Amino acid sequence: MKVLNEALKNIKHINEEAVKNANERIDGLLKPIGSLGKLEEIAVKISGITGKLNNKINKKNIIVMCADNGVCDDGVSACPPSVTIVMTNNFTKGITGVGVLCKFTGTDLTVVDIGANEDIQDPKVLKKKISYGTKNMAKGPAMTRDEAIKAIETGIEIVDNLASEGYDLLGTGEMGIGNTTTSAAVLSVLSGMSPDIVVGKGAGLTEEQFKNKRSVVKRAIDVNQPDKNDVIDVISKVGGLDIAGLCGCFIGAAKNGIPIVIDGFISSAAALCAYKLNPEIKNYMIASHLSAEPGAEYMMREIGLEPMLNLEMRLGEGTGCPLAFQIIEAALYTMENMGTFGDAMIVNDFLVDIR
Amino acid sequence: MKVLNEALKNIKHINEEAVKNANERIDGLLKPIGSLGKLEEIAVKISGITGKLNNKINKKNIIVMCADNGVCDDGVSACPPSVTIVMTNNFTKGITGVGVLCKFTGTDLTVVDIGANEDIQDPKVLKKKISYGTKNMAKGPAMTRDEAIKAIETGIEIVDNLASEGYDLLGTGEMGIGNTTTSAAVLSVLSGMSPDIVVGKGAGLTEEQFKNKRSVVKRAIDVNQPDKNDVIDVISKVGGLDIAGLCGCFIGAAKNGIPIVIDGFISSAAALCAYKLNPEIKNYMIASHLSAEPGAEYMMREIGLEPMLNLEMRLGEGTGCPLAFQIIEAALYTMENMGTFGDAMIVNDFLVDIR
Repeated sequence: MKVLNEALKNIKHINEEAVKNANERIDGLLKPIGSLGKLEEIAVKISGITGKLNNKINKKNIIVMCADNGVCDDGVSACPPSVTIVMTNNFTKGITGVGVLCKFTGTDLTVVDIGANEDIQDPKVLKKKISYGTKNMAKGPAMTRDEAIKAIETGIEIVDNLASEGYDLLGTGEMGIGNTTTSAAVLSVLSGMSPDIVVGKGAGLTEEQFKNKRSVVKRAIDVNQPDKNDVIDVISKVGGLDIAGLCGCFIGAAKNGIPIVIDGFISSAAALCAYKLNPEIKNYMIASHLSAEPGAEYMMREIGLEPMLNLEMRLGEGTGCPLAFQIIEAALYTMENMGTFGDAMIVNDFLVDIR
Repeated sequence: MKVLNEALKNIKHINEEAVKNANERIDGLLKPIGSLGKLEEIAVKISGITGKLNNKINKKNIIVMCADNGVCDDGVSACPPSVTIVMTNNFTKGITGVGVLCKFTGTDLTVVDIGANEDIQDPKVLKKKISYGTKNMAKGPAMTRDEAIKAIETGIEIVDNLASEGYDLLGTGEMGIGNTTTSAAVLSVLSGMSPDIVVGKGAGLTEEQFKNKRSVVKRAIDVNQPDKNDVIDVISKVGGLDIAGLCGCFIGAAKNGIPIVIDGFISSAAALCAYKLNPEIKNYMIASHLSAEPGAEYMMREIGLEPMLNLEMRLGEGTGCPLAFQIIEAALYTMENMGTFGDAMIVNDFLVDIR
């Protein structure tokens, strides 16, 4: 609990002076004010985080938290839980979606076993298992409060290490069959919205399976009665070890002053938890894409962020992050290298107000 | 007219066999079916265009059509028309938004004077002027039918040349004060929607100027009575030389079998015109971002495309295209390099159905 409490206490408010300077500089660029929309917002946000006017990303890393969910016993997923193990063993081989996109964008990948059902063979996977999967939340708490804290602190410590290695842009991803169910439960409790609204079909359920998934989420909330004002209670009762670990990553990124990108539905459940623990963390988050999972939009609304990509993706793994990294790097490059209003005037030797 | 007619006749239907093969291959990749959303659609679309299963972009080019609009006499823009000249002279210097983004993404830029009010000094700008701006469409036709055809054919010929130089991905951009007004007029006529709905505030109008802009568009349509079933009539009466030139680019891209990216509101007005001239051209178009200009959404709906980026941009110039190029190249790379379902099974030596 010490690591978590100290991290939450050590999150600095963004540098308002740098935000002001960045806004001023951008408003002087050769374009109508505000016309580069979110490219401008991203560049300003990163100035606020780093305190620097111009920023260039040197090292990018996506953290993929892998964990199993006991709630799979109740048939909430179209996939067998063994897929978590298969995929966790395949990430570092570069053949999964996020692996290929990382290679394309020059991004490193940190794969973490934080709670898969079995031991992971791949030596490149970080072994941080809190438990062999969670318990079935439809029957009782998914994990103990201590386990939730330990998983969050694991995320914080992983980011501490990445920060010391010089990574200056992070992404979040996950692998865990059943984790759209836990994410929907977390969203339902924290937002007060009904499971009927926030539960989606995940990787492809039939109508009957979908109905069952909604009732399982309702049961999990009924049985556990998580306290919506106590995020750790919510995570431990109806969350998952992947969500807890990623929540720690968001906290760790804010603590270390590094921008961190949200991927899809599960990643944003973790982001919502981190935001509820300390609203300041939102200033370090950048939303990537709007997942095709229906609850994703409500999740974004709860955090108060708007994704930049609309690609109808629903793979998870962190696949939205490398795509967002490309836009972020383009935004930073553009704001640093565009000419000013003055440059164009001088070139043309006459005065014109394009604003 | 011969160049245009022959181009429209020479547009081939996409390769359905390649689309089928691409879909089959993608459905065998290590992910739930359809879970990479638009990344999959983009890769399949490009397979349909090239006839090849795997595609890699070798040379990218964005064509920026620059032209002035006589309708500026009626105060439809917050910017003085002289900005068109200033910006046209600055594009190849790499200090504008599109110039910087092109440099960042390794994209070449073709800047075309198709109708600026003055001669352009920059020797790197293609000199294809049809006339020194258009006439005020609120008083009569913006241009003659012959001028519209000549401008469209100019666009086709520019793309013919780029195709012969080996460019295999194109983007479209424009510079022309007053061209959100002409684009709204074109959209209003072709869609039947009222100017009250499709006219937006462009680069930043006051409420009064905005009201005036709507009434100018209404007047232009009333005065000219363009025939909505005759696209060239619409372009010549209430369009612009930039719209006509870009319309030619879309036709030329389809004729040459090259994917072409739509930028914002003006670029999509040109795309809509090309689509109405030959619906097959849509299969060669890829939408980039949803412009913050309110009519952009209706334009996309008329063509039946959905943009991949939601960046609240409204700069024009083609700035959405380099950002979309990044996503397109990531999509092609992903679909070529992801492992199959079989790869993961073999690695793990047991059978599992992740679909």
